[in-house]
Amino acid sequence: MVTINDVAAESGLSVGTVSKVINNLNVKESNRKKVEAAIDRLGYQVNMYARGFKIDKTYTVAIIVPDLINPFFALFVNFVEKTLVGEGYKLLVCTTYGDAEKESSYVSIVVRNRVDGIILISYHHIEDELKNITIPIVSIDRHLENAGCCISGDNENGGKLAAEKLIKTGCTCVAYLHNGSNLDGETLKRGKSFIKTCRRAKIRADEIDFGEETTLNEFQISKIYEFLERNLSTGRFAYDGIFTSSDIHAVLVTEKLQQLGVKIPEEVQVIGYDGLKILNVGDYAVSSIAQPIKNMATASIKALLGLINKEAVEKNIILPVQFVEGGTTRKE
Amino acid sequence: MVTINDVAAESGLSVGTVSKVINNLNVKESNRKKVEAAIDRLGYQVNMYARGFKIDKTYTVAIIVPDLINPFFALFVNFVEKTLVGEGYKLLVCTTYGDAEKESSYVSIVVRNRVDGIILISYHHIEDELKNITIPIVSIDRHLENAGCCISGDNENGGKLAAEKLIKTGCTCVAYLHNGSNLDGETLKRGKSFIKTCRRAKIRADEIDFGEETTLNEFQISKIYEFLERNLSTGRFAYDGIFTSSDIHAVLVTEKLQQLGVKIPEEVQVIGYDGLKILNVGDYAVSSIAQPIKNMATASIKALLGLINKEAVEKNIILPVQFVEGGTTRKE
Repeated sequence: MVTINDVAAESGLSVGTVSKVINNLNVKESNRKKVEAAIDRLGYQVNMYARGFKIDKTYTVAIIVPDLINPFFALFVNFVEKTLVGEGYKLLVCTTYGDAEKESSYVSIVVRNRVDGIILISYHHIEDELKNITIPIVSIDRHLENAGCCISGDNENGGKLAAEKLIKTGCTCVAYLHNGSNLDGETLKRGKSFIKTCRRAKIRADEIDFGEETTLNEFQISKIYEFLERNLSTGRFAYDGIFTSSDIHAVLVTEKLQQLGVKIPEEVQVIGYDGLKILNVGDYAVSSIAQPIKNMATASIKALLGLINKEAVEKNIILPVQFVEGGTTRKE
Repeated sequence: MVTINDVAAESGLSVGTVSKVINNLNVKESNRKKVEAAIDRLGYQVNMYARGFKIDKTYTVAIIVPDLINPFFALFVNFVEKTLVGEGYKLLVCTTYGDAEKESSYVSIVVRNRVDGIILISYHHIEDELKNITIPIVSIDRHLENAGCCISGDNENGGKLAAEKLIKTGCTCVAYLHNGSNLDGETLKRGKSFIKTCRRAKIRADEIDFGEETTLNEFQISKIYEFLERNLSTGRFAYDGIFTSSDIHAVLVTEKLQQLGVKIPEEVQVIGYDGLKILNVGDYAVSSIAQPIKNMATASIKALLGLINKEAVEKNIILPVQFVEGGTTRKE
């Protein structure tokens, strides 16, 4: 059987260099070619399992994420993967559809499969599941005792920016629409900060909670529609400003109100959260608080690799957000 | 060291059942709980590498895809992952950004890492890279000698449907806008069938090729804008119907023409390809030929698992498409 030593001898390079090529780590292009030529000539087959035994690393990271249907998550995973590959790692993608059991089950599966680290977007009581896990974890938008780092956008400021925009453009009665987990997460700050800023300015601000389910299924959507219809009387909507916990909510609200004959942004202004563009290339889908998705992804990987390499890593990283104009708000 | 036999004895179940739980395959929920309780009590740690040695399967599939920025790919990967997990498999996601070297490099990496199968969306000459690979491959939209199966939407009919829609709604001078690979792929049929159907109806139909690059970078986008501006004279656009090779192109074209003062769909109608909705929840982003993304994903996995299990699998699977109304075409 051909061994890594044979490949090193054949290529005239060190075992270390051959190992780097095999693991897709950075080596000089000319050396990579020599090693690959030697591998081809000898018909060498890497024994991943033997390798795993020896170096105790799989160069694989898992991301546990609700879905790739919400473009926020798809873009986040896209940039996570791109960053990881640059560091010689591979990415396992695990979608939970916001289901608590699936979250737990995926954690067990990826731990059993010995990934080197986990990026976790969790909306459930996952603390018990994580208790005995020694693999480094970076959590997004959520403080978990066993996660070495929590990355989030500046939700406090995001809520404030949305409130200020609606106040400045003349709103007098606004609502914050959201669904999802009520666990201690950074995202809760969006709504709290929005409501606080509005009330300080003596503006009526209601919080409308569509329940704990994190994914927007048909039932959730029908509850949102029902709320919009219930608050419409003789063509006039009860609120003149709506802030939502995601752009997906804001798109649903905007389209439904327009269908009901409400003029947006003339009669009602809508601000979403995330800053997503139509098919990710066009105009912003709605006016929104844009999250720094790419920076959140690269910061997550930087933190995770730091934890994997046993370096000191900041426990909480909060990245700046900004208001973006998407046609559902009026000019100041 | 605790072994799988110890877990079987502790749980009172067979080694086979314990193995199924470890591999996340279907077992009775009560049995799963018993096995997991036994694993916890004994502190059993699955040795993935030893497992890999023995059963020669990693229960891992890789998908090689341009990116997760185009929602078509993100949705496809989403449904592929969901289907795979139901079969006890995990998914490695590899994004190539349409780069030929990255495509080849990913193929080598995932083969070295012993995935059980590959779902491949390739736009380059990858035939040499695949020649010596014995792992089952399912290819999307592209005929590759070494792929056991090619899955695609019905591009022939897609192009025809787009042409018929524009003809019926009064277009007299249309163009097909596309970029991307000119290799033997199913997607080429979109344009060919569109042009043929238009010309048969004695309608002028031009093909506008923006080059072989598969991802829409800034340079590509500027070429599209330049084409639109060049064909606009005194507020009138040279074509009254545009068909594009993707919805992303169609969104760019629609937004730019509107910016230039062209009324859509009154003066110019636009039809894209893929059938994507705004943030995947709202209205269709543009009128389009909708691909059956979810069915394409489940068909890919069905074919791949068939190949992995050495069953007979159809070599070409073509799934039906349909026209969807997205506000950029006129009513018939």
